[in-house]
Amino acid sequence: MAFRTRRHVDWGDCDAAGIVFYPNFFRWMDSVFHELSTEKGFDHTDLDQYGVFATPLRDVGAAFRTPARYNTWLTVEALVTRVGETGFGIGYRFLAGDRLVAEGREDRVCVKQVLGGISKTPIPDPIRAALESLR
Amino acid sequence: MAFRTRRHVDWGDCDAAGIVFYPNFFRWMDSVFHELSTEKGFDHTDLDQYGVFATPLRDVGAAFRTPARYNTWLTVEALVTRVGETGFGIGYRFLAGDRLVAEGREDRVCVKQVLGGISKTPIPDPIRAALESLR
Amino acid sequence: MAFRTRRHVDWGDCDAAGIVFYPNFFRWMDSVFHELSTEKGFDHTDLDQYGVFATPLRDVGAAFRTPARYNTWLTVEALVTRVGETGFGIGYRFLAGDRLVAEGREDRVCVKQVLGGISKTPIPDPIRAALESLR
Amino acid sequence: MAFRTRRHVDWGDCDAAGIVFYPNFFRWMDSVFHELSTEKGFDHTDLDQYGVFATPLRDVGAAFRTPARYNTWLTVEALVTRVGETGFGIGYRFLAGDRLVAEGREDRVCVKQVLGGISKTPIPDPIRAALESLR
Repeated sequence: MAFRTRRHVDWGDCDAAGIVFYPNFFRWMDSVFHELSTEKGFDHTDLDQYGVFATPLRDVGAAFRTPARYNTWLTVEALVTRVGETGFGIGYRFLAGDRLVAEGREDRVCVKQVLGGISKTPIPDPIRAALESLR
Repeated sequence: MAFRTRRHVDWGDCDAAGIVFYPNFFRWMDSVFHELSTEKGFDHTDLDQYGVFATPLRDVGAAFRTPARYNTWLTVEALVTRVGETGFGIGYRFLAGDRLVAEGREDRVCVKQVLGGISKTPIPDPIRAALESLR
Repeated sequence: MAFRTRRHVDWGDCDAAGIVFYPNFFRWMDSVFHELSTEKGFDHTDLDQYGVFATPLRDVGAAFRTPARYNTWLTVEALVTRVGETGFGIGYRFLAGDRLVAEGREDRVCVKQVLGGISKTPIPDPIRAALESLR
Repeated sequence: MAFRTRRHVDWGDCDAAGIVFYPNFFRWMDSVFHELSTEKGFDHTDLDQYGVFATPLRDVGAAFRTPARYNTWLTVEALVTRVGETGFGIGYRFLAGDRLVAEGREDRVCVKQVLGGISKTPIPDPIRAALESLR
């Protein structure tokens, strides 16, 4: 079942053409991922207890369907699309009312800290269960 | 009476020291000003009907009292501190629960478009009344 | 031949994990696109003379290979990957010295203003020639 | 003697009114402070060796004189205005050619990490000397 929240298009989110400056859609995707991980009990201050340092991005993308302008509330839907051994995928949809504004995706991976850097680590069971609940 | 709303400290709002990267407080002040202007009926898409092009900033400032970290909800209070002929002032307070995080101020001015640029213009009566209601 | 420039990883570009907050890579891609369009004579203040209003994004993506940290200079290479009737593609590579940090792509389209919105318009010949020089 | 550098007004730095979204001036001030601290040998990766954890902001401000638009190079001048026991002040000027765009100031303080938080600490002598060279 999709996670559903919303984000507001602020004045500072728009460019001189009066539409959302597109990197903000990725800022919102990251923000919504953190919101859903908080809701599901694995926000970035909780990850430690599971032996996970962070969930960095490997691959992301977005397609822009129709423009979004200042002072619009966007509904954001997030759906987990893949749960692998160490990585997982999330799909996002941004809607203004019924109108599709943008679609995006994030491919994240669980990592732990190791000497001199980070290393992939299996998704802990509680996080795996939380992700599965959003498929 | 103060306008009261809230903003969330997102992962991307924090710097490598784990606290809010300070320009974000100004992004939030501008965002809250637009929110209150929308509530009071003079958002930037409504200004035109009053002969006002925009309300640019003349002077701003902020003082940072205590740090704010990732995944915190900040209460934001905005109070109009001055209503002049063409300009007005707004004061902001950011709180994490009862703890004061930051205080800020914006000094804005009403402008209209003129040949080759912009020029100060008196605050229209409906906007003046709306501002006075937030003193 | 690729367009080559660089961008600096600022303090405010990094998140609480000490690495670049990923939406900034898209901010840099857009910035580099504008830099190369300025170099090639079709920046957004010049587009008008060609009957083009803007070059909005249709589809974008990025893959993150290795982390980039505070106070690093990134070399950015941009290569035109496709020149169609109305749209074109640009590929980007971010390097820290010889180390590949990230790869990205933008799929843009030329639009003109029409009653009630925007509409695709053919890439003007001078812009087409400029883009072809970056293949 | 003032530290002098420049910053470019990118497409994404401007709002729907076509001028710089003002929080970006603070982003640039912070960025220029880090650039000058790097030049003078005390960037945030060097601070540790001096027993300093960071140089957070206590108070900041800016006045906006004339608008700055897309694709403008701004000259930025930074001058140290105060060197106290633990804190120091920096003044900034943004110019487009000879035209003054904005003035700003940052009031920073040296802090060290202590149990449960941070605490003010005297400015180390090498940093003090570096700051004095920019008065």
